[in-house]
Amino acid sequence: MNERRIERDSLGTIAVPAEAYWGAQTQRSLENFPFGPGERMPAAVIHALALVKLAAARVNRRHGLDPALAAAIEAAAREVAEGQFDGEFPLAIWQTGSGTQTNMNVNEVIAGRANEQLGAGRGGKHPVHPNDHVNRGQSSNDSFPTALHVAATLALQRDLHPALERLRDALARCRDAWGDIVKIGRTHLQDATPLTLGQEVSAYVQQLEDAGARLRDAERFVLRLAQGGTAVGTGLNAPPGFAADMAAELAALTGQPFVPAPNLFEALSSNDALVQLSATLATLAVALSKIANDIRLLGSGPRSGLGELILPANEPGSSIMPGKVNPTQCEMLTMVAAQVIGQHQAVTLGGLQGHFELNVFKPLIGAAVLRSISLLAVGMDSFATRCVAGLEPDRARIAALVERSLMLVTALAPEIGYDNAARIAKHAHAHGLSLREAGLALGLVDAAIFDRLVRPAAMV
Amino acid sequence: MNERRIERDSLGTIAVPAEAYWGAQTQRSLENFPFGPGERMPAAVIHALALVKLAAARVNRRHGLDPALAAAIEAAAREVAEGQFDGEFPLAIWQTGSGTQTNMNVNEVIAGRANEQLGAGRGGKHPVHPNDHVNRGQSSNDSFPTALHVAATLALQRDLHPALERLRDALARCRDAWGDIVKIGRTHLQDATPLTLGQEVSAYVQQLEDAGARLRDAERFVLRLAQGGTAVGTGLNAPPGFAADMAAELAALTGQPFVPAPNLFEALSSNDALVQLSATLATLAVALSKIANDIRLLGSGPRSGLGELILPANEPGSSIMPGKVNPTQCEMLTMVAAQVIGQHQAVTLGGLQGHFELNVFKPLIGAAVLRSISLLAVGMDSFATRCVAGLEPDRARIAALVERSLMLVTALAPEIGYDNAARIAKHAHAHGLSLREAGLALGLVDAAIFDRLVRPAAMV
Amino acid sequence: MNERRIERDSLGTIAVPAEAYWGAQTQRSLENFPFGPGERMPAAVIHALALVKLAAARVNRRHGLDPALAAAIEAAAREVAEGQFDGEFPLAIWQTGSGTQTNMNVNEVIAGRANEQLGAGRGGKHPVHPNDHVNRGQSSNDSFPTALHVAATLALQRDLHPALERLRDALARCRDAWGDIVKIGRTHLQDATPLTLGQEVSAYVQQLEDAGARLRDAERFVLRLAQGGTAVGTGLNAPPGFAADMAAELAALTGQPFVPAPNLFEALSSNDALVQLSATLATLAVALSKIANDIRLLGSGPRSGLGELILPANEPGSSIMPGKVNPTQCEMLTMVAAQVIGQHQAVTLGGLQGHFELNVFKPLIGAAVLRSISLLAVGMDSFATRCVAGLEPDRARIAALVERSLMLVTALAPEIGYDNAARIAKHAHAHGLSLREAGLALGLVDAAIFDRLVRPAAMV
Amino acid sequence: MNERRIERDSLGTIAVPAEAYWGAQTQRSLENFPFGPGERMPAAVIHALALVKLAAARVNRRHGLDPALAAAIEAAAREVAEGQFDGEFPLAIWQTGSGTQTNMNVNEVIAGRANEQLGAGRGGKHPVHPNDHVNRGQSSNDSFPTALHVAATLALQRDLHPALERLRDALARCRDAWGDIVKIGRTHLQDATPLTLGQEVSAYVQQLEDAGARLRDAERFVLRLAQGGTAVGTGLNAPPGFAADMAAELAALTGQPFVPAPNLFEALSSNDALVQLSATLATLAVALSKIANDIRLLGSGPRSGLGELILPANEPGSSIMPGKVNPTQCEMLTMVAAQVIGQHQAVTLGGLQGHFELNVFKPLIGAAVLRSISLLAVGMDSFATRCVAGLEPDRARIAALVERSLMLVTALAPEIGYDNAARIAKHAHAHGLSLREAGLALGLVDAAIFDRLVRPAAMV
Repeated sequence: MNERRIERDSLGTIAVPAEAYWGAQTQRSLENFPFGPGERMPAAVIHALALVKLAAARVNRRHGLDPALAAAIEAAAREVAEGQFDGEFPLAIWQTGSGTQTNMNVNEVIAGRANEQLGAGRGGKHPVHPNDHVNRGQSSNDSFPTALHVAATLALQRDLHPALERLRDALARCRDAWGDIVKIGRTHLQDATPLTLGQEVSAYVQQLEDAGARLRDAERFVLRLAQGGTAVGTGLNAPPGFAADMAAELAALTGQPFVPAPNLFEALSSNDALVQLSATLATLAVALSKIANDIRLLGSGPRSGLGELILPANEPGSSIMPGKVNPTQCEMLTMVAAQVIGQHQAVTLGGLQGHFELNVFKPLIGAAVLRSISLLAVGMDSFATRCVAGLEPDRARIAALVERSLMLVTALAPEIGYDNAARIAKHAHAHGLSLREAGLALGLVDAAIFDRLVRPAAMV
Repeated sequence: MNERRIERDSLGTIAVPAEAYWGAQTQRSLENFPFGPGERMPAAVIHALALVKLAAARVNRRHGLDPALAAAIEAAAREVAEGQFDGEFPLAIWQTGSGTQTNMNVNEVIAGRANEQLGAGRGGKHPVHPNDHVNRGQSSNDSFPTALHVAATLALQRDLHPALERLRDALARCRDAWGDIVKIGRTHLQDATPLTLGQEVSAYVQQLEDAGARLRDAERFVLRLAQGGTAVGTGLNAPPGFAADMAAELAALTGQPFVPAPNLFEALSSNDALVQLSATLATLAVALSKIANDIRLLGSGPRSGLGELILPANEPGSSIMPGKVNPTQCEMLTMVAAQVIGQHQAVTLGGLQGHFELNVFKPLIGAAVLRSISLLAVGMDSFATRCVAGLEPDRARIAALVERSLMLVTALAPEIGYDNAARIAKHAHAHGLSLREAGLALGLVDAAIFDRLVRPAAMV
Repeated sequence: MNERRIERDSLGTIAVPAEAYWGAQTQRSLENFPFGPGERMPAAVIHALALVKLAAARVNRRHGLDPALAAAIEAAAREVAEGQFDGEFPLAIWQTGSGTQTNMNVNEVIAGRANEQLGAGRGGKHPVHPNDHVNRGQSSNDSFPTALHVAATLALQRDLHPALERLRDALARCRDAWGDIVKIGRTHLQDATPLTLGQEVSAYVQQLEDAGARLRDAERFVLRLAQGGTAVGTGLNAPPGFAADMAAELAALTGQPFVPAPNLFEALSSNDALVQLSATLATLAVALSKIANDIRLLGSGPRSGLGELILPANEPGSSIMPGKVNPTQCEMLTMVAAQVIGQHQAVTLGGLQGHFELNVFKPLIGAAVLRSISLLAVGMDSFATRCVAGLEPDRARIAALVERSLMLVTALAPEIGYDNAARIAKHAHAHGLSLREAGLALGLVDAAIFDRLVRPAAMV
Repeated sequence: MNERRIERDSLGTIAVPAEAYWGAQTQRSLENFPFGPGERMPAAVIHALALVKLAAARVNRRHGLDPALAAAIEAAAREVAEGQFDGEFPLAIWQTGSGTQTNMNVNEVIAGRANEQLGAGRGGKHPVHPNDHVNRGQSSNDSFPTALHVAATLALQRDLHPALERLRDALARCRDAWGDIVKIGRTHLQDATPLTLGQEVSAYVQQLEDAGARLRDAERFVLRLAQGGTAVGTGLNAPPGFAADMAAELAALTGQPFVPAPNLFEALSSNDALVQLSATLATLAVALSKIANDIRLLGSGPRSGLGELILPANEPGSSIMPGKVNPTQCEMLTMVAAQVIGQHQAVTLGGLQGHFELNVFKPLIGAAVLRSISLLAVGMDSFATRCVAGLEPDRARIAALVERSLMLVTALAPEIGYDNAARIAKHAHAHGLSLREAGLALGLVDAAIFDRLVRPAAMV
């Protein structure tokens, strides 16, 4: 591990570990941004950048790139995209704001691997040069945001939407199974008119349905790629048609309908598409917080809470209180939601501080969006599997709570007026009576009318 | 102003100002939430609630509401909707989280006005009762969020989108007028390859175009109305078809394509539609920050800044520095953007803290969203009119800056390689030479090649 | 109202309403930033700026300002500071980011009033000139942030701290009165070991105590005034000793220990002191959210919630559900808290976007901080008076809930071990037994030991 | 790696890897929260928890814990605290909200290691039991927040404050070295009156000085430990004096002045101390953003920007533009700042969502605060070393910019009045004259007065 070789860039020479595929610029960044291993650029960004390089090799070959070099680049890029060289990408998120150093890390490792495969030894710039060949027709300023869009799209399609759908489906099964369980409604956390447990859960299903639709809206803009803009959006040094060709290659490689951004200047200088995606993930987090909070409140107890739902006991709940079981999946999900909302804050700050032709908060934004997607995907999946799928209603408890509710009086209001109905509820509350007893005692309703109107099952 | 009359509600009697149209519940809220006049529920909410009451009177008439009462409610509601009684709505945003007290304020004032018109004196509950007649078939829990959706939709269509389009169009005129002005590009705030001033501005036009499209996406969900859910989403006490009829009436009254929410439980218990709308307004704020920041940087000077744009002098800039002119419209717009982003934070917090059948952060959310819409609408309109429309490029300055740039060297890289091109740029920088001088001095390029490749106008 | 007079500034002439005291610059700003009346600069800023002018007249007199003019400025400034001319300050928060236009509004109105009092007619610049006399030795860049610090300090001392103390004291009375009420503890919203209701409330008292102390920490930096820095911090055009003299005069006028900022460049270019104050207000908002949420959960019911506390019935709770009472003060306070946290977001954004010698988000920051102080002060005061002071514990309900708790088993763990104690709790839960029954049935504890150890009142 | 042994907890048996020291509860959590390795609980939390266990073994020995077991626990805890077993703590941040599972992970590993050392084989519960011995007198509810406070305090003292001081000192050296460089001031990004470069930098030094003092304020509350409260704050099952003894032991182990929290109920149920610490870190991030932004603007160029500072060239700046150098350390620091502010958002959300006796967002809050401290410490240190220490002023450029400034006219205002001075500046601007030429041409000032008053070096 201590052997070194010398690499060179426009600032001069620098020693890199002999076994590393990377070159001078990676090494400089590694030394210039000494954050810990927990702060590495996400592997998903590396893999997506490798797909960009793979696609570029194909397109560049049509524009004169030596086919032997192109093939070597393609092969090496594919290995990187598949995760075979993840250890070769040690750079931190916190680097240059364009992601240039990670782009160069990918350029250097692919060149270094291609050179090795071409018999020139590991690393170096010959015969494959990281800038002139791997990065050909590209700039970090268009490749890096392209990679972020590709990585986010893949993570959404592979991880987030399936998890969202599993959670929605798990809740939909509850909704369908619990359609006959009449329970007390609660507004302002106070007793209100009844509904079914299935109806209550149906709101969660709708929230997730809508959250998915909103994400699809936001994703349309993420399918637009910056590639082809090169340094400032003009496409200088890229061959004609590069933007369209690259989007087509990336679409073919991933199965996602990528298109060139309609305005490449915007695609480099703004990250609005990712800001809106992050915002929409935060709206999903808001919905998940509501759902998880409701479930933990409904599961509160076991004897001194609301106790309408029984949550699965996944682990001992306390290191000191024997026998305790806690709503840990709800806690995990609400913490994840808070983190996602916090990351949207960081993304927002990054989004608004761009200058002129380039926003230089791209690594921050990309890493935050990808972490949010991952946290939400794992969190929803776990919550669906380990909490929602195991929920059991406590039917006896639910029935007892709805029967004693004073808010059933609402059904009388159209018949006897709001003010008289209020008098009955207040009288019952003050004297510990049932509504029926109070209504009859006050002479404001007769038994036949009461029994016809005040039926929880008819009120849902 | 000191005369009083007695009004009554389910908690008992209370004195209200004799000249007020409102009743007991308004008076209680006024006393219970003693915030200052700057904290009043926005008039747009009141007007929209009055539209709800107007629509309800029409629908309820078909379901048996006495036509004379219905007509009186309709007439009074129309007056309120038109703003003729704005002084009758003194309640604070900071009240019950369902907006019940503002809903009752509207119910009471409409009843009080209708009773007056029907000859029964101002205020009171006879012959028109605020709950039994004006609020018939409704709950605050569905009427208030319905009013928020109606108010937001109207503000978006009447104010925000037109202002957004005016700003986009003003920028598009700049884009078109400045298509021939070649200027230096800047990435990382450092000199980069050239583009035209029109291209630079085209990014802003695209940002606003996309922001408008994203808002349209978010607005789809805001067109869905909670009305018909009544207290908890079951529609208890509302006549059959009430949700659909109300949406149709409100659509007719406003010209906006309102529909009933697909799930009324969700429509009461979550505010996700407004959270996402607020998020999307925040994304617009992010875009506006970028645009306004660029313009103030381009206008920095007059002698010691970048000085590429000349901003209109709308007012003296300094109370101590004579002759100073400042980018005040940019400052206004970036402050507005920060406020809107902050309000989205508040909306997010409100959105995630709902419980069970009702989210009780509705007044906060509604007031914040409406303020954001209004701030952005006025802010963009003013910025378009008083800043963008008066921008003038300083062509001489722009030309001088681009000519001296070292980054024109990029055009040589495909011909002589990245490393040699870098050597030229560094040599020029170190010795204060032009690129051409440096390239020839180093023997890395000949004059003919240089002059063919390094032409800013050909690089855009 | 339609009569006009002509005023003049360095941009030329402009017509102002004849009866207005203000001059050309106010009029320009009024036309250039057409926000609605709800967006006016807070009166507290105006009053504090007038105190600055009053102090400056005193100090400037010592440095040669004509005593007759100084006296006239002083008198007019005092009238403005007392709120007698609030209608003369129509400018929006959303203006130049230095507050220059509000500073000029104050300069012009004071000059205009002084000129009137000196017999020269309302308005104008003679004999008292808004810049040369009222603004003498000052710049907006130091006067405006000074006014923000003065206004915030006064609002904190007059409004926020007293309200915080009233709320803390109201809770302390609950703590003291409820020291003997043993209740079930809840962690993870699940039943836990017991404590007293007084102990539970004691945490809230401590939170508020600490919140007050943190505010005092933050306020130290707000007592430092920018005055004396003039345009960029160098103090150009201010007489020697101006910073110290102004701080002394403002301290004398307000009774607050203001001092000159130790670095006037920092005091103009950063708003860190207000950012930290806003952050600390947000931490208070976090504490208030916890407290208000607990109270509404404890008050949930009346029959199907936790029901440990009975909240005062301040108003009818529902427009559709007769007899309903809601935790409206809790809802108000949690909405206020969310708004304050959102405003801190806006303040943070403003704080970090300064450039060089001046941060130009001062009106945003000032208005947000003052609104936060005001919302929290009114909100806490109302919550203390209308909620906390009226809380009643439901002793029977509390006793019933603690007696049935399974978590009393924790007291057995040191004697019989965690694992055996857990077996007892699980057995009781599964079979609907009391802990005592379960423990004896499993033979894991004998009756004497059980009765000695498992006594809720001994566990608190 | 595939061999397994059976461990047991109150939910039953479970297979764990044979070579692992952990037990049943760790294994359950590992399976129940399947987040990736990037989401592990920070090692700093593990180390601090191990210190808690070490201290507890010492205190418990005095209260009857078998000295042999106590010694074995102490030895194992020390190994864990020193990081020798970091691989044994695989649990995610996203788990139960009390950190119970990480507390049990630590209990189990220490027990498992102690049992191994005592000859009973790796893992298991005999003779050392994770709950009955390692966790003795403790609950996760007090141990985990104690560990967060210990970990944060150590990270602040060891990493953050030294880095903050290094950055402050690096800037102070600039301030002192550049005291004679008169430069143009800029307010609103527009030319303003002059100051020295040293004065400009002195503001940054003051910002950092104040940021450090604010952190010290916030840290006072973090020195208060929850330990001794056990499950709900009552201290059930802890021996008398446990809180004080533990604080004393932890103080002795770390050299930090820890004390018991004045109210243990508050210490469990609120995380206000960490919320405020996070807020104060965010205020530091605001200050750092301002500083880094100024420096990158001053370093903009090299030929078409402001160009007053020359930033060190740490790496090639562009993959496409040869010779480009970018302000990468500024970009890193502003991204870090945005991330820290975003994390504060997450912490705030966690802080306000506690319920009753426990806030269950502790892992989120702890991990976010520790990450913020680490990011800021590394970021400031790198920025100080690799940016500030290498800054060079471009004296010729600075002199040229200040000489041409129109705002030097301000020095004339006290002599000839604001309005006349404004006329001179406008005339010079309109006709491209120097101020002197314009003043003389307009006859508003004579040459002697001009030359006496308008001297940049005298204006700073």
